[in-house]
Amino acid sequence: MGKYDALVELLLEVIQEGGDSPKEDNSIPVGISNRHIHLSPEDLNQLFGAGYQLTKTKDLSQPMQYACQETLTICGPKGALEKVRILGPVRRESQVEILQADCFKLGLSAPLRLSGELAGTPGITLVGPKGSVMLAQGLIIARRHIHMSLQDAQRFGVKDGEEVTIQTPGPRGGTYAQVVVRANDTSRLECHLDTEEANAMQLTSSSKITIVR
Amino acid sequence: MGKYDALVELLLEVIQEGGDSPKEDNSIPVGISNRHIHLSPEDLNQLFGAGYQLTKTKDLSQPMQYACQETLTICGPKGALEKVRILGPVRRESQVEILQADCFKLGLSAPLRLSGELAGTPGITLVGPKGSVMLAQGLIIARRHIHMSLQDAQRFGVKDGEEVTIQTPGPRGGTYAQVVVRANDTSRLECHLDTEEANAMQLTSSSKITIVR
Repeated sequence: MGKYDALVELLLEVIQEGGDSPKEDNSIPVGISNRHIHLSPEDLNQLFGAGYQLTKTKDLSQPMQYACQETLTICGPKGALEKVRILGPVRRESQVEILQADCFKLGLSAPLRLSGELAGTPGITLVGPKGSVMLAQGLIIARRHIHMSLQDAQRFGVKDGEEVTIQTPGPRGGTYAQVVVRANDTSRLECHLDTEEANAMQLTSSSKITIVR
Repeated sequence: MGKYDALVELLLEVIQEGGDSPKEDNSIPVGISNRHIHLSPEDLNQLFGAGYQLTKTKDLSQPMQYACQETLTICGPKGALEKVRILGPVRRESQVEILQADCFKLGLSAPLRLSGELAGTPGITLVGPKGSVMLAQGLIIARRHIHMSLQDAQRFGVKDGEEVTIQTPGPRGGTYAQVVVRANDTSRLECHLDTEEANAMQLTSSSKITIVR
């Protein structure tokens, strides 16, 4: 086979294959959380009446998690926030995740915590249609975190519990440090930030970030 | 002089001087802006009545700038924000600086701009005690910036208009890129962020940041 034929053959092969295989996509979708509430079965009954069932309105990206039709008023010593969304399903312990800005309105100081790490956190009063509950603890500002599968963790070279730094794109960009990896066999890849963190970097629910260590 | 005496002399000198001269402090104080309004003299008259003078309640860190007792309601097609603070003194052109979160409430999309760069920005309706004004333009989200003197600029090795990256401290830290240096002979050193940018990094008005390029 002469040079000309070899060239044509290679050209045809490359065109059929669409060039070299694409570079692996290392971007991570962003999920943005506004203030929200997780309820225990006992607190759900107290706030909405015995035997009440939450009404799902929208599935969230993480398996089994959903937004509910129901909202509550949350009250601190200085003020209240109305229509705070409940997320389902019910959990072992009630938990209220607020924004830094909400602390001023409520007159409460919430610590930075991962979901579920509630020991020593302040309480807050929840008011529902059938009653109110004064939580002994459970008020937090969520730490930035990335949900991922164990395969994703391996692909990114990170471990469950590890802190990484993420890079955000765009004209109001930067990096967020101390982003906790939450890897297990049921999670879907998503970086969770709250609305203030998203707005400060002008991220939307269609934004993607990358891990930069 | 023997080694012993030389050592004693040097020891005494070092103790008197307090060790080597301290490292230069390269930290920059943070100033946090909530949504606010600058008014032209014409719009001030329209909103508060002819000949009205603003009432200063607090000097701001930048020379001649102050917070006023007066507030306005700002209105977009989807909603309104009440009690938005006016900053004095009056300026050539009215300008409304809002937060990213406010865009959703107002139903308006504000571009990222430096103060005063208003060409092509959307307008908004201002409502005061004596009248209302429909601004043709002037609605912005402020770009992150650092005010500094020309001496400070020299010390940091930066120029007026240059974009730098800043590092924030603490357990919710990171970096903000695209922070614009605003250097002139009247400014006081201060990095201006809005409340969402401050909250996303848990910065307060006593926080300090550093330039990292």
